[in-house]
Amino acid sequence: MAAIEAPDVPVARLSSTGRVEAFSDGVMAIAITLLVLDLKVPTPDQVDAAHGLIQALAERWTSYLAYLTAFLTIGIVWLNHRAFIDKVRGFDGKMLWLNILLLLGIATLPFPTAILAEYVGVGGAVASAAAVVYGSLSVVTAAPWVLMWLHLTRHPELLEPEYGVAYARKERKRALIGPVIYLLAIPIAAVAPLVALFFYIGIGVLYAVTNQGVDVSRVKS
Amino acid sequence: MAAIEAPDVPVARLSSTGRVEAFSDGVMAIAITLLVLDLKVPTPDQVDAAHGLIQALAERWTSYLAYLTAFLTIGIVWLNHRAFIDKVRGFDGKMLWLNILLLLGIATLPFPTAILAEYVGVGGAVASAAAVVYGSLSVVTAAPWVLMWLHLTRHPELLEPEYGVAYARKERKRALIGPVIYLLAIPIAAVAPLVALFFYIGIGVLYAVTNQGVDVSRVKS
Amino acid sequence: MAAIEAPDVPVARLSSTGRVEAFSDGVMAIAITLLVLDLKVPTPDQVDAAHGLIQALAERWTSYLAYLTAFLTIGIVWLNHRAFIDKVRGFDGKMLWLNILLLLGIATLPFPTAILAEYVGVGGAVASAAAVVYGSLSVVTAAPWVLMWLHLTRHPELLEPEYGVAYARKERKRALIGPVIYLLAIPIAAVAPLVALFFYIGIGVLYAVTNQGVDVSRVKS
Amino acid sequence: MAAIEAPDVPVARLSSTGRVEAFSDGVMAIAITLLVLDLKVPTPDQVDAAHGLIQALAERWTSYLAYLTAFLTIGIVWLNHRAFIDKVRGFDGKMLWLNILLLLGIATLPFPTAILAEYVGVGGAVASAAAVVYGSLSVVTAAPWVLMWLHLTRHPELLEPEYGVAYARKERKRALIGPVIYLLAIPIAAVAPLVALFFYIGIGVLYAVTNQGVDVSRVKS
Repeated sequence: MAAIEAPDVPVARLSSTGRVEAFSDGVMAIAITLLVLDLKVPTPDQVDAAHGLIQALAERWTSYLAYLTAFLTIGIVWLNHRAFIDKVRGFDGKMLWLNILLLLGIATLPFPTAILAEYVGVGGAVASAAAVVYGSLSVVTAAPWVLMWLHLTRHPELLEPEYGVAYARKERKRALIGPVIYLLAIPIAAVAPLVALFFYIGIGVLYAVTNQGVDVSRVKS
Repeated sequence: MAAIEAPDVPVARLSSTGRVEAFSDGVMAIAITLLVLDLKVPTPDQVDAAHGLIQALAERWTSYLAYLTAFLTIGIVWLNHRAFIDKVRGFDGKMLWLNILLLLGIATLPFPTAILAEYVGVGGAVASAAAVVYGSLSVVTAAPWVLMWLHLTRHPELLEPEYGVAYARKERKRALIGPVIYLLAIPIAAVAPLVALFFYIGIGVLYAVTNQGVDVSRVKS
Repeated sequence: MAAIEAPDVPVARLSSTGRVEAFSDGVMAIAITLLVLDLKVPTPDQVDAAHGLIQALAERWTSYLAYLTAFLTIGIVWLNHRAFIDKVRGFDGKMLWLNILLLLGIATLPFPTAILAEYVGVGGAVASAAAVVYGSLSVVTAAPWVLMWLHLTRHPELLEPEYGVAYARKERKRALIGPVIYLLAIPIAAVAPLVALFFYIGIGVLYAVTNQGVDVSRVKS
Repeated sequence: MAAIEAPDVPVARLSSTGRVEAFSDGVMAIAITLLVLDLKVPTPDQVDAAHGLIQALAERWTSYLAYLTAFLTIGIVWLNHRAFIDKVRGFDGKMLWLNILLLLGIATLPFPTAILAEYVGVGGAVASAAAVVYGSLSVVTAAPWVLMWLHLTRHPELLEPEYGVAYARKERKRALIGPVIYLLAIPIAAVAPLVALFFYIGIGVLYAVTNQGVDVSRVKS
């Protein structure tokens, strides 16, 4: 809130990344753990109707798929965020707000996941609608990355010294892949909701496989 | 609890800010993420009644507005807290308690937000009451800042060396803006609850726009 | 799990306190923030029955008292834990388990608080039972401090160099005050549940007033 | 996401463990604290039927046992994770994913715990099924440790200098104990669900007793 008396050293114009990391990690850790509340314990009535607890649980397999999808999504965002912060030297006001926008998307994800867990197993128009809602929020969640890298192409001084404008431009292009993939998945979600879920999980697995060993960052302090 | 044998160095009379930061960040990160639990998945009955899931979700748009309002509010408090801690060298007992008072307000915010999400869309006296309750707690949440800066004007030794009594006085005045704005919003909330929500979101956006780049703090460690 | 090849330096036999702090702070921050879920939004039926939302909310004032009590309790535990860790140089296996026992008490507190919030306003035997349950868990929550200081009197090498056996003995005695006060409150809870709540809040306020300025710890790093 | 321009120093090929620690601690702290939501406040009907609140609470003793079991399990995982990280110098992509797999198990644990708390007191086939479901997820939760140590036997450069291939092989064998014990408990769970719960708690207590003092790690920083 305060327009602080600016110190002379220009480097102090940048905020430290430490607390941004801590707060972001906190929000992501909580969002990923809150997902479990979307898994509903079958009621005694449901257990009786399904001829047993195991069967009642098995019938809700699509909700576990929704859970797994969202878990992988937030897991990937965390990995990205971690790699991202390592390249950033400081956050200015706009970057802080873009980061809060990113966290808004992640913190909201348990809601469409709950919708998905509740309705994707029902089939028909309701299942399609649930998958489209989930897919649309995924696009929104992936968008702030593009805006952040766009901001960094204009303010390369916010990057660590080893990264420059050229790098930021390359990353901005890369960041576009996320929203585009999620956008492409929306028609799939509308037609075949369960296929869309497997598609989302596939992105996660693919990401895991292709990024093995390329994760490079600071050494243990 | 313990009256500790005071070491000789006077600086050690001040507690470190690190764990206050960690605990406060934790509470704020959890409160901001718990807000999502206020977004309710429509029941199958509601979906049928609304002729489809999308429509059933769309009908609850005021609850998303309430969610967004509270998210932005906690986001701003976090940014403020972050900038605040950067200026504080240490916490004495009273500051620790004022900080816990601040966290009490933030941690409680999901409750009036849930009330707002449930009732602001209903319209009439109930919607007004919900908005007034939310607005009143916002005043309470903004008040500890005034008390903290008041305490710092009396104990400028708790501030980092570059800030003095004059700075603390200036900030105390600035801190008053928050509760006053939220107080002014209460009559709006009573008359036009939805307008009050847009007003709260407007504060967030205005804050985001006017604070771009003025956020100055320590460099990445 | 692993019996690690002990390095030669005896100091390395002690575990670092950093992660114990982080995990404990996390659990306490979450427990204190989860308390808000015990505040229930009145249902439309309850609002109608109470002739309005404000009145429906006002009727549940005892649940806010229960919330405040538990919030202050966890707040105090956090302050104690913070001051405690500052005096501890390292955790051995037993101390780690005593700390997990302490966290078990804190993490469980939202449950008796929910019972209290639900039933203390009902009055009669049910309200008394709710207050006694809450009070009993408070005793359990305060007990691990005694065990931790008892362990430290036997292993003063776990303390920071400036504290010795004599200090640990003094603290062990002081730590007894907590469980004893909570134990004394149980008969009050049985007879006059609401008085017990004010008593618990009174402990918090008293603690806040008497500890002003005596909080001494490490300087900002 | 980004294939980063690799710096020349090979050590920088490893990611820092700090943020993995923070995120993992966050997920574990949240999961362990969310367990309390599985403890249900008796409804007024249940209180009446049980002739009092205390009796209504007492009748749900098996749910407290389930809570305690899961709390101890996550507590042990946290202690293991803490000791594990101390031996790891850096995380490569595969290790990061194995860690996310581990967190998936822990974050999901409140779900089978809720099933257990709901149904283990019912007795009969439903109670057996609940205990088997809980036991099966415990196996899954314990498995990533084996995979992580397997990976470390192939990439000993990820370990701190004092640990080598031989150590990783020894730990890989040790890590197998966990899943095997949990696997052996499944038949017990099927036959005598409550005995299985005591068995799980017994593992925790045994672990606590045998690991006293062998926890060796870095000194307080």
